[in-house]
Amino acid sequence: MPRIGFGLWKIPQDDTASCVVEAVRAGYRHFDSAADYANEMQTGEGLTQAMADGLVSREDLWLTSKLWNTFHAPQHVEEACRKSLEDLQLDYLDLYLIHFPIALEYVPIDERYPPEWLHDPDAPNPVMKPAEVPLQETWAAMEALVDKGLVKQIGVCNYNSALLHDLMSYARIKPAMLQIESHPYLTQERLIRLAKQYGMDVTAFSPLGAQSYFELDMAAEGESLLGAAPVMVAADAHGKTPAQVLLRWGIQRGTAIIPKTTKPERMRENLDVFDFELSQVEMAAIGALNLNRRFNDPGTFTEAAFNTFHPIYD
Amino acid sequence: MPRIGFGLWKIPQDDTASCVVEAVRAGYRHFDSAADYANEMQTGEGLTQAMADGLVSREDLWLTSKLWNTFHAPQHVEEACRKSLEDLQLDYLDLYLIHFPIALEYVPIDERYPPEWLHDPDAPNPVMKPAEVPLQETWAAMEALVDKGLVKQIGVCNYNSALLHDLMSYARIKPAMLQIESHPYLTQERLIRLAKQYGMDVTAFSPLGAQSYFELDMAAEGESLLGAAPVMVAADAHGKTPAQVLLRWGIQRGTAIIPKTTKPERMRENLDVFDFELSQVEMAAIGALNLNRRFNDPGTFTEAAFNTFHPIYD
Repeated sequence: MPRIGFGLWKIPQDDTASCVVEAVRAGYRHFDSAADYANEMQTGEGLTQAMADGLVSREDLWLTSKLWNTFHAPQHVEEACRKSLEDLQLDYLDLYLIHFPIALEYVPIDERYPPEWLHDPDAPNPVMKPAEVPLQETWAAMEALVDKGLVKQIGVCNYNSALLHDLMSYARIKPAMLQIESHPYLTQERLIRLAKQYGMDVTAFSPLGAQSYFELDMAAEGESLLGAAPVMVAADAHGKTPAQVLLRWGIQRGTAIIPKTTKPERMRENLDVFDFELSQVEMAAIGALNLNRRFNDPGTFTEAAFNTFHPIYD
Repeated sequence: MPRIGFGLWKIPQDDTASCVVEAVRAGYRHFDSAADYANEMQTGEGLTQAMADGLVSREDLWLTSKLWNTFHAPQHVEEACRKSLEDLQLDYLDLYLIHFPIALEYVPIDERYPPEWLHDPDAPNPVMKPAEVPLQETWAAMEALVDKGLVKQIGVCNYNSALLHDLMSYARIKPAMLQIESHPYLTQERLIRLAKQYGMDVTAFSPLGAQSYFELDMAAEGESLLGAAPVMVAADAHGKTPAQVLLRWGIQRGTAIIPKTTKPERMRENLDVFDFELSQVEMAAIGALNLNRRFNDPGTFTEAAFNTFHPIYD
């Protein structure tokens, strides 16, 4: 899997197809998608156009998508996967991930898609509706997708170490990937080390930290990593931008990263991190910024936005 | 369940029987035991003597014990429970808990008991041997103990919120109790709130914080809670000891607590926390000491003591 993927979370539908083509032009071959991002159809248009234009072939691409929470029941997993495949205009995914260790009540695709978090968004006091689906059953259904050739590899997002141990105890096909939030304010050394000990690769989402969360009011102004001293010092030393230093830090510690941008010049900037190396001291100084600060935390946002207290990391 | 239990962890075997009798005399009716504490036989002697002396009857007692990690495989759960019952000289437990969400390879009782953490303690470089037993299978075997009348209620220790969600999805008999480390340096508000939302009661172990861990070199000198300012201020205001303030804080926030001591005067002191009430401001000031400092963390001690990196809280 290419170590830098193009993150599709929060790319507006209208921009997605052209962004994807632009990203392919800029050199991206790995795209990180999800049903919940509400732009898989447009992503598929972009990919199809890029292939039609001869910019890239399917074999050169790496496509990740994610099973949404409402499709955890084993009888709905294949349906969800086939919907992503159809929207993306693909006949297989390189990687399919359980998006959250959170099972929500099923919402039929023709009723609302993507279904998002709320069970009935038009209700006077809308809430999430957890469903009693064991993660083990969902995993078995994910394995069946591999058996059928719909996906090459499977994995999980937003799992913690205790869930990984349990998953490993029942997985017939072992998870290939753990995707988690990680950046210098949330370094997650132990979880990453455990995943590697289990033979999993790790993808860090939000590798720039707070940047994705300002627009969602999920980060405060002072929380940007771009101005953190060791990041700026390293940027200055290497003639790179602070963002490039953060991305390089993520790659150099052994995680794949999936930065998002709609700007072509930024797309190229984000890929241009292979011509320098951070020293051990720079790596450590940046890692020492760790505050265990999680921006993407269901324990916070489910209550704030969905009237439901549903922590998963506590 | 009486809100203060007598904690049996680390009570030396030779002292246990007399301690238990003394504790009954001091007024304890709830005893928190575990196979791993290596003193269940002596606890049973003490309980039997206290009952023979007419100090207490079985119906007035609350006995908790815990399934050790090496007995997670469903075919070994009843064996482990019956061994605890036999040692404790009881025909039922009030509460039986999964001790850790960690499955280790089985060690026969006649080979080594309690089996502790290491697979082969006499090996040149001894390690833990995780076993691939899904928590769901262990839970089903715990439920069977309730069906057979060997235990009245079942629950879990050292689970986090993600594991609780999953447990709730497959539990036929819902867990009655979550036992976790909690004190003002590790307040765990969200996890406690989630457990209560699921209808579980919560027991806080190590309610005095670092005190249990100095002798194990798992806490530093400066980490005692007994000298923390808001604890001392409240102790002074109420004419109580700092320990009593910490215990009262635990009870008043809705957790049961299981302090341990071998000293009769301390046993009485620890029970004598029902004649005063901490104000909301005192409760908040003590809770604000939170540092998310976990003293009992397998992510640390399995590596330090058992040559195995096995985090469960990361």
